[in-house]
Amino acid sequence: MKKNIFFTMIGLFLLLTTASAQNKKRIPTKGLAVFEEKGKFKPYEFSRHAVGDNDIQIEILYAGICHSDLHHVHAAWGKEEFPMVPGHELAGRVVKIGKNVTKFKVGDYAGIGCMVGSCRVCDACKQNHEQYCEHGAIMTYHGVDRYNDNEHTQGGYSKDYVVASDFAIKIPADAQIEKVAPLLCAGITSYSPIMYAGVKRGDKVGIAGFGGLGHMGVQYAVALGADVTVFDITEDKRQDAMRMGAKHYVNVNNPDDLKDLNNTFNFILSTIPTNYDMNMYLKMLKYDGQMAIVGLPPFAQMPTISLDKFIWQGNRKIFGSQIGGIKETQEMLDYSVKNNIYPEVVIIDAEGSLVDEAYKNIMDGKVKFRYVIDMKTLK
Amino acid sequence: MKKNIFFTMIGLFLLLTTASAQNKKRIPTKGLAVFEEKGKFKPYEFSRHAVGDNDIQIEILYAGICHSDLHHVHAAWGKEEFPMVPGHELAGRVVKIGKNVTKFKVGDYAGIGCMVGSCRVCDACKQNHEQYCEHGAIMTYHGVDRYNDNEHTQGGYSKDYVVASDFAIKIPADAQIEKVAPLLCAGITSYSPIMYAGVKRGDKVGIAGFGGLGHMGVQYAVALGADVTVFDITEDKRQDAMRMGAKHYVNVNNPDDLKDLNNTFNFILSTIPTNYDMNMYLKMLKYDGQMAIVGLPPFAQMPTISLDKFIWQGNRKIFGSQIGGIKETQEMLDYSVKNNIYPEVVIIDAEGSLVDEAYKNIMDGKVKFRYVIDMKTLK
Repeated sequence: MKKNIFFTMIGLFLLLTTASAQNKKRIPTKGLAVFEEKGKFKPYEFSRHAVGDNDIQIEILYAGICHSDLHHVHAAWGKEEFPMVPGHELAGRVVKIGKNVTKFKVGDYAGIGCMVGSCRVCDACKQNHEQYCEHGAIMTYHGVDRYNDNEHTQGGYSKDYVVASDFAIKIPADAQIEKVAPLLCAGITSYSPIMYAGVKRGDKVGIAGFGGLGHMGVQYAVALGADVTVFDITEDKRQDAMRMGAKHYVNVNNPDDLKDLNNTFNFILSTIPTNYDMNMYLKMLKYDGQMAIVGLPPFAQMPTISLDKFIWQGNRKIFGSQIGGIKETQEMLDYSVKNNIYPEVVIIDAEGSLVDEAYKNIMDGKVKFRYVIDMKTLK
Repeated sequence: MKKNIFFTMIGLFLLLTTASAQNKKRIPTKGLAVFEEKGKFKPYEFSRHAVGDNDIQIEILYAGICHSDLHHVHAAWGKEEFPMVPGHELAGRVVKIGKNVTKFKVGDYAGIGCMVGSCRVCDACKQNHEQYCEHGAIMTYHGVDRYNDNEHTQGGYSKDYVVASDFAIKIPADAQIEKVAPLLCAGITSYSPIMYAGVKRGDKVGIAGFGGLGHMGVQYAVALGADVTVFDITEDKRQDAMRMGAKHYVNVNNPDDLKDLNNTFNFILSTIPTNYDMNMYLKMLKYDGQMAIVGLPPFAQMPTISLDKFIWQGNRKIFGSQIGGIKETQEMLDYSVKNNIYPEVVIIDAEGSLVDEAYKNIMDGKVKFRYVIDMKTLK
C-alpha cells in the first residue's frame, strides 16, 4: 500500500514537472527527414518540447545509421508516420539542464539510444529492463511520448534532442566521441545478450551477420576470450573478421565452410536482418548452448521455426533480446571506452543525398561497418 | 590418440560379444501388435535376439501406454514398419543375465524406457545424454538395432525383452511395481527439463497439457516447492490438479482463466501433443523465464513460432527436451520411489480390444492419467 502511494506521488511529480515544461517555449531545431515511405532525405525544421525540470538538452554531434532505420523508412515493420527523422544512436554535448538534474552539467558529453522514456514503476522498469516496460518504452523516434503531450518523437539525424536525464547516457570525457553513437544501439544490442548468456574465456561463439551489430558482437566476444566464428554471406569481410580477432569465418553460401559445425557452439548471436534458416544455427549449438536473436527482419521476410526442431535439438535454447536497459547501456559504454572497443565507422556529412547513398550501401551490404552522420555539418 | 585406440577396442569388444550373441539361439516371445497403420491390436508371436554377454532378459510385468505410441500407430511422424509392437515404458523382472553383467541379478526388478542402445563413445554419450547420441539412439521400438544384426526393434507390449544391461534401469525392490513403467518415459520426460531448468521453492511453474506427462510434471514441481498452475482444455481435470498440489487451474477455452497471466511464470513445461499457440505461453514468462517443450504433435499439426516473437518477449527462452539420459533416468526413478511420486494408472488386461479402447480414450482426452497393460495376462 505504501508502495502504491509512493508511485502515485512519483506519477504526480512527473505530471506536474511535465506540465510545467509544457508551459515553457518549445525549442526549434532541424534535421534530415523522409517525407514519405522509402522517400529521399531532405532538410526538415521542427521543434522539441521545452527542457523540463528533469530534462537535458543535447546538441547532437554525431548520429549513427542503424539497419533498423532503413526498416522504418521502408515501413517494413508496419505503418509509419511521416515526415520521419530517424536515428536512435546519438552522441553530443549537454547545452541545457533542468533544475532537478544532477547527473549532467552543461558541457558534458551525453548520448541517447533507442529509448527516451518508460513508466519507471512496473516490474520491468524497477529491474532496470526499461526496454520491456509493461506500459511500453518510448522510442527515440517513431514513438509517442505520453509524458510530453503525446508528441510524436523524432530521432537523432538532427541538431538537438531534449530528453529526461535518466534516459541519457553519460559519455566519458576521454571517449572517441565520433565513434560513440553506434554503441548506444549496435553496441548495447550485441553486448547485452553476450553478457546475459555468460560468454566466457574459451567458449565457442558464433556471430551470424557481420554488419553494424555483428562487428560489435565479435569485439565483445573476443574481449571476453571466446573462440569466435563469424557467419556472413560474402567473401568480402573474411579479412575484416580475422583483423577483429575472430578465429574462423563461414561464408554460408559456401557449402564447404558449413561442414562439421553441428553441436559445436556454446553461444550464437544472430544479428541477421533478413530471412534465414534458424534451425541451421540451432543445430550448431552444443548441449546447453544458447542462441540469442537480435536481428529483426522485415515482417515480410520473418523466419519461423517449428516446434519439432526444438525437440530434435533438445536442451539448446533460443531467446530474443531487445537492446538493453539504461543501467546496462551505461555499463556497456564504460566497458567499451575502457577497453577501446568501438565500431568501425564511415563518417559522412549531414546531406540528404549522402544519407540516401549510405542507405543504398547498407541495403547492398557494402558498408564497413557503420555510417555515422556528422550532425555539425547540417546546413 | 590413446582415446581413439580405447574406443576402437570398446567397439571391437561390443562387436565380438554381439557376434557371440548372434550365434546363440533367438528367444521366442509374444505381444500385442498392430499390423497396419491405425490397425487394431492382435496377438503376435515374434522373437528377441539371444542374451549376449552384456545383456539381460526381462520378463515384462507391466507396460505403459504413451501418447506417442498412438502417434506411431497412426504414422503421424512419418512412415512406420508393421507389424508394430509399441511400448517404451516397461517394468519387469530379470530372468537371465549375460556372463559380464554385474548391475543386475536374476530376480531383480528392471525397467526399460525409450532407448535400448547408443554408440556410447560420442560426446553426447560420454556426457550421459545418450538420447542425443550423435550416431542415433536406438529406440525401444520402431528402431533399428545396429548392434544386433540391424534387427527392427519391437516394444514393451510383450512378454520379454532382451537389452544391454547398461540401458536397463534398476527398479528398487520396494517400488510399487505396477506404477513404475510410466516413470520410464512420462516420468523422466517431465523430470529432466524441470531439473535442468533449476525449478526451486517458490517458483511460479506452469504445466501445459495435463495428461500422462503433465500429471507427472505437476508432482515433481510440487515436490520441489513450486507454485504450480495447470493448463488444459477441459473442466474435467480441475479437481485432479488441485488434489495433486497445483494452486491454479487454467481452462484455456475459458478466456477469463487466461487473464493477467503475462509475465508471471519462471518456468513453463509444455506437454501438449497437438497444435497450439506457442507465443501465448512465451508471453506468460517472466524476464529470464524458460519454456521447455516435451510434447511433440503429429507433423500435420506442428506449431511454429516466428522470430519476432522471441524479440518482443526478449530474455525468455524456449528449449526442447528429449526424455533424459540413462544416468538421469535412474536418478529420476530413485527420486520418485523415495518421494512416493507415481503416475495415476488405469491397469488393463493385455487384450487387443482393451488396448484399442484405451487408445480411443487417450485420443478423446478421457484417461486419468496413464493406462498400464498388465502383461502377465497376455494369452
